Amino acid sequence: MSTPLVVEFQAGSSGTWRIERIAAVVGESLPDAGYLNMHEGNQTRAVVDTPAWALKGITSNTRYTTREEVTRLSARQQGLGRPEAMCAALIPIRKTAAWWALAQDERRAIIEEQSRHIQIGLEYLPAIARRLHHSRDLGEPFDFVAWFEFPVSHKAAFETLVQRLRDTEEWRYVEREVDVRLYRE
Amino acid sequence: MSTPLVVEFQAGSSGTWRIERIAAVVGESLPDAGYLNMHEGNQTRAVVDTPAWALKGITSNTRYTTREEVTRLSARQQGLGRPEAMCAALIPIRKTAAWWALAQDERRAIIEEQSRHIQIGLEYLPAIARRLHHSRDLGEPFDFVAWFEFPVSHKAAFETLVQRLRDTEEWRYVEREVDVRLYRE
Repeated sequence: MSTPLVVEFQAGSSGTWRIERIAAVVGESLPDAGYLNMHEGNQTRAVVDTPAWALKGITSNTRYTTREEVTRLSARQQGLGRPEAMCAALIPIRKTAAWWALAQDERRAIIEEQSRHIQIGLEYLPAIARRLHHSRDLGEPFDFVAWFEFPVSHKAAFETLVQRLRDTEEWRYVEREVDVRLYRE
Repeated sequence: MSTPLVVEFQAGSSGTWRIERIAAVVGESLPDAGYLNMHEGNQTRAVVDTPAWALKGITSNTRYTTREEVTRLSARQQGLGRPEAMCAALIPIRKTAAWWALAQDERRAIIEEQSRHIQIGLEYLPAIARRLHHSRDLGEPFDFVAWFEFPVSHKAAFETLVQRLRDTEEWRYVEREVDVRLYRE
């Protein structure tokens, strides 16, 4: 859980996940593509063709989560790759320079004490599984790539989840966000 | 200050900083070399020869520092490259898996409330300038590369500073540390 894992998302003309739609939420969108593949680690990649676009991130240690929150999350969350999780969402996000200039305690206060980001995510466990990838320190166009997997029965719940997060104080610091929806064929 | 800057330290047979000594503090050392160069950003590098070794890191946003601490640090600290700062130290550090498995609030409590890491560093400002580079998410052999610059008059003070830090609770989580001392010729 705490060993960094490099993950690359490649969009192209074939793959595991069919792209349903790509929508810009804030700022510039990503180019159209038919399929998406997720490659974990540095193993040789089964690249089928030149990707239409690719985003890279790293699963890292917790940055804001307290022990008490980690315990509650661990008790409820499930891993990726569940057979019933036929739907997915890839949501790359970039925050403003003002966000990154805040001190650690200021960012924590906005994320949780004001915006309840961790608490909101908890409400949708275990159905909506989530993994966060950090990209900012890799010189990527986004700061984070969030990946979600859930069953068809939770598509409406997922809409509510992302809408609740986008209505928070924390999201006032988001300057680019793209929402990519996918399903397994 | 908050825009990530890629920095690479290259050891070789010529350069800006003469290597005085390389000492393993915990774990494996680094190979001997005569000189060290620091390259900032992704500009074309004036590589004189194949480096004996190279370490890379990124200056990133604060991870533990509160607004109150940032304000106190900013009021006292000075930048790198002061003409009188003829001495330098390069201290790469790797922490244990147990450290990275701790939650954010647990790591913060060890670093500052127990170990007074930020407070100790403050005591040596402005004479001992410091910049921290994050390496763990880049797949580097160390988690951090700390870089210090100070005048000859503060060599003894620098010894005291590093010894005080090595005596803390935080340092019980250090599994590899190398201490490279340098001077400008």
